[in-house]
Amino acid sequence: MNPNLLSQINSPSDLKKLNRAQLPQLAQELRNFIIDIISKKEGHLGASLGVIELTIALHYIFDTPSDLLVWDVGHQAYGHKILTGRRDIFHTNRDFDGISGFPKRSESEYDAFGVGHSSTSISAALGMALASHLKNEWNKNHIAVIGDASIASGMAFEALNHAGVTNANLLVILNDNAIGIDPSVGALKEYFTAVKKGENHEENNIIRSLNFEYSGPIDGHDFETLLAELSRLKTIKGPKFLHVITTKGKGLQLAEENQVKYHAPGKFDAVTGKIYPKEEDNSPPKFQEVFGQTLVELAKINEKIIGITPAMPTGSSMNYMMDVFPDRAFDVGIAEQHAVTLSAGMATQGMVVFCNIYSTFLQRAYDQVIHDVALQNLPVIFCLDRAGIVGEDGATHHGVFDLAYLSCIPNLIIYAPLNEIELRNMMYTAQLGLSHPVAIRYPRGKGFVQNWHLPFQKVEIGKSIQLENGSDIAILSTGTIGNNVTKALSQVNSKNNFSHFHFPFVKPLDEAALLDIGKHYKKVITIEEGTVNGGFGSLVTSFFQENEIAISVKKLGIPDAFIEQGTVQQLHKICKIDVESLVNYFTTCS
Amino acid sequence: MNPNLLSQINSPSDLKKLNRAQLPQLAQELRNFIIDIISKKEGHLGASLGVIELTIALHYIFDTPSDLLVWDVGHQAYGHKILTGRRDIFHTNRDFDGISGFPKRSESEYDAFGVGHSSTSISAALGMALASHLKNEWNKNHIAVIGDASIASGMAFEALNHAGVTNANLLVILNDNAIGIDPSVGALKEYFTAVKKGENHEENNIIRSLNFEYSGPIDGHDFETLLAELSRLKTIKGPKFLHVITTKGKGLQLAEENQVKYHAPGKFDAVTGKIYPKEEDNSPPKFQEVFGQTLVELAKINEKIIGITPAMPTGSSMNYMMDVFPDRAFDVGIAEQHAVTLSAGMATQGMVVFCNIYSTFLQRAYDQVIHDVALQNLPVIFCLDRAGIVGEDGATHHGVFDLAYLSCIPNLIIYAPLNEIELRNMMYTAQLGLSHPVAIRYPRGKGFVQNWHLPFQKVEIGKSIQLENGSDIAILSTGTIGNNVTKALSQVNSKNNFSHFHFPFVKPLDEAALLDIGKHYKKVITIEEGTVNGGFGSLVTSFFQENEIAISVKKLGIPDAFIEQGTVQQLHKICKIDVESLVNYFTTCS
Repeated sequence: MNPNLLSQINSPSDLKKLNRAQLPQLAQELRNFIIDIISKKEGHLGASLGVIELTIALHYIFDTPSDLLVWDVGHQAYGHKILTGRRDIFHTNRDFDGISGFPKRSESEYDAFGVGHSSTSISAALGMALASHLKNEWNKNHIAVIGDASIASGMAFEALNHAGVTNANLLVILNDNAIGIDPSVGALKEYFTAVKKGENHEENNIIRSLNFEYSGPIDGHDFETLLAELSRLKTIKGPKFLHVITTKGKGLQLAEENQVKYHAPGKFDAVTGKIYPKEEDNSPPKFQEVFGQTLVELAKINEKIIGITPAMPTGSSMNYMMDVFPDRAFDVGIAEQHAVTLSAGMATQGMVVFCNIYSTFLQRAYDQVIHDVALQNLPVIFCLDRAGIVGEDGATHHGVFDLAYLSCIPNLIIYAPLNEIELRNMMYTAQLGLSHPVAIRYPRGKGFVQNWHLPFQKVEIGKSIQLENGSDIAILSTGTIGNNVTKALSQVNSKNNFSHFHFPFVKPLDEAALLDIGKHYKKVITIEEGTVNGGFGSLVTSFFQENEIAISVKKLGIPDAFIEQGTVQQLHKICKIDVESLVNYFTTCS
Repeated sequence: MNPNLLSQINSPSDLKKLNRAQLPQLAQELRNFIIDIISKKEGHLGASLGVIELTIALHYIFDTPSDLLVWDVGHQAYGHKILTGRRDIFHTNRDFDGISGFPKRSESEYDAFGVGHSSTSISAALGMALASHLKNEWNKNHIAVIGDASIASGMAFEALNHAGVTNANLLVILNDNAIGIDPSVGALKEYFTAVKKGENHEENNIIRSLNFEYSGPIDGHDFETLLAELSRLKTIKGPKFLHVITTKGKGLQLAEENQVKYHAPGKFDAVTGKIYPKEEDNSPPKFQEVFGQTLVELAKINEKIIGITPAMPTGSSMNYMMDVFPDRAFDVGIAEQHAVTLSAGMATQGMVVFCNIYSTFLQRAYDQVIHDVALQNLPVIFCLDRAGIVGEDGATHHGVFDLAYLSCIPNLIIYAPLNEIELRNMMYTAQLGLSHPVAIRYPRGKGFVQNWHLPFQKVEIGKSIQLENGSDIAILSTGTIGNNVTKALSQVNSKNNFSHFHFPFVKPLDEAALLDIGKHYKKVITIEEGTVNGGFGSLVTSFFQENEIAISVKKLGIPDAFIEQGTVQQLHKICKIDVESLVNYFTTCS
């Protein structure tokens, strides 16, 4: 056995020099390579291990990058990256200035379409295919690889529905492993599962009914079958659908057995697969932990409470409520639009709905927030997880637009807690009944308060809180970035010059406080972990203008540019809202 | 024949007093009533005529409002409104302070869910059904009536996919007339058409595969069948799907024969159905006309140009290009998410894509604009039709959020033309290549320039235009609302006090002009037909602040409230941006 196949592969053309019998060995090497690096570095593991054979087979049979290959979401594209010239920089995966954890057009000509959010691949590949036809490139292939969780999202259906009435050279490959990040849900998933079991094989009508040439299901870990079927499909024109059965985490036993945990396991032993235990420390819990525990606490005292998550039960901790109240907590799959309007429907019947959606994914349900919730003034409680900078997932996933895109919506209350206690108290307050919808946005990861589990206190709507009292300059922060302000002020010599006000309510603004601030300070600095355009600082500036208060306002936050990947700390620095930058800025001011 | 059945029906309980044999007469009276009023008043005609029997049958068999009935979109709900206590105010349909053209919760307890945008009904009804179960109301029925165009939208699929794994008492009624506003498209539509023809009847697997009890297709104009089937379905628990075949425009021959035209025909002869000819006048063309003609002109000289519309070929005038270049213009159905990412996919292959979406419907594809287009900086050309106040369609349809929700997106150029000539020139300029995506937003209806068809001129990106030159106060407007400013200034005695600058570019702002304005004027007034929160005025205010220019800025535009229906003129007045309000305000200023 040649021990060094992978080291010879610098591009798919190198791959094509291997004979078919060598491919299993390459697959083993590729798996080991990924396991070895991800075990030390962290990253998305299970998805890529599941498509090793498919990845090799695709590049072996098709002529990438001339044939265009789009990976849906992109968690599964590590093998693709390694085989397309990025083996030697793969160790920089998800690092600041490293390669992206997702396919990215600016990174490689083999990354035909940038991804991150789910269910875009069929639309993108169909667009490419229709363009190719207009350019008379009839032999070009356009391939979307999409998981069974992603294909159930409405956008994917829209694309299938369109593709089926075209003659596009489109190959949709369903990577069916019955799991997204959490196990897949929904009627379509049950249907595909029945097909896999052979219960419904011959008349696979959902796909055939949409005018696709359907083939499968085939074993996605068997090279002979994969190569034969891909070769055959390469010669067939029009929309085609290949149903491939894979195992997420394939090749690492613990990852196969614990697929949710090994989606992104953190550091682990590359040989045994055992995840290294987290260091015991006394650091505060994650916001997600506080959300999950608090929701269960509240659901015990308020039987109207319902929880909804679009496919993120583990990530959001909605699974806490799903475990305790399985009838009152719903994972609706990757279906943000449906999740929001479902919440609205429930709210019309007096239910108190906590709809938990990552900030970046609420972009998928923007119209539903406006048209179905806010316009009807239904008191849905949106919990926007992973608001602000998310770190290593990068530009596709930062939750930095929400303050801007939500603050133009009438009727909506927008709340950004400083810490876990405020999150908890606002959840408590919201379920008491606000007669308006509310969006509570909080970040990914660790909170700030060890002793967060205190008796509930009602939050006064629209009220700001003064945290520091100083003379000349008023710092107005919203959300957890206020903790950076507190740390920074403690390091500033001229600290007495600064007052610090925490504005948990971006809407409604605490106008009384602003009028008072306008009177007593020479300068205002606003700080938010969201786009400066259209966000909190913008609202504050406008308020002063409308009230003819001539005060200088400096707005800090996310600049008008897409922020790439890195640690939260590194990216805060880029945006000049890390502690050190704040110390420097405050020092300059005073 | 009792000539007065309809006059006796003030609620569904009155309806239930009729015997079945009387229902056809009631249907005839209801049709006549709708035709009579809509022929004089204008409104949506064809959809409601198509569901007269279904509407009567639903209220006859089910126990509304206890049973919850959700009409998708709501164009078809006129009969429902008339039978549920709104007969005598139906003539105020779509008027300022009249009843809404759509079901609306605040209007009637029979309107279980407010609608306007498509494909929300199944999610909303499912939410209601799950809520009922939690309240142990197991005999309650929850009904969504959805058209074949709307059910093909991704959101509807998401709801079906979820419903199929619940035991919800949900009845989805597919009102299959093969047309939305324009003829339906897509593979699912072809499938349903095959089912109708009996080609695929027994194994109606798409719906059954999603775990619905399927029945139909049945004749939606035959009372006997309808009543029997609805009675039967009323007793069946769990998710059910009834496929009903109807004819849009049923009962008015010309409306049946010209279904697109009679969707909302304007005024017509109630007896013959003949649409009254528009008065010949020399008024300028509609923006839609200019868009349609200009796109064809450009497509003739630039073979890379592609047109995309999500289900609005007639409304947007994309049908002009579809007629001349059928291979290069695509109606993708009610699928805004897919439309945007399809455009992005095409743009990666060098195509110059004009993606025309109504401003209010781009809310459906917000994430795709950010994640698939702007993040990859793909030069898709968005033409946002019906931006600003749309008039009688009301709160669900005003395109007033776009400036706010788009201006926080990096890489995106935002352009709001003053008139048809600027629209045309910007379309020309965009297809030359801007290396950025661009959103061009323009209103519904008539333009301002009779002689618009002039040779193309290239627009300078980011450049404002001074329209009036005065001394003290600078008025900064963006978009067509600038024409109100021009008219207002002509009526102001102190006109010489005012300069008027047109900022077609909301992004990038003309910073050089702003710096100059900041130096030379005492006060700035910004005017936009969009939300004041986060829009053009907000960007201008922030710019002055950032540059430490102490100048008072008054922002006029859409206030932080949902604006109801009325004429554009009436609604401009509410927002204080009509000519008269501007005259008054300018007079006060000077």
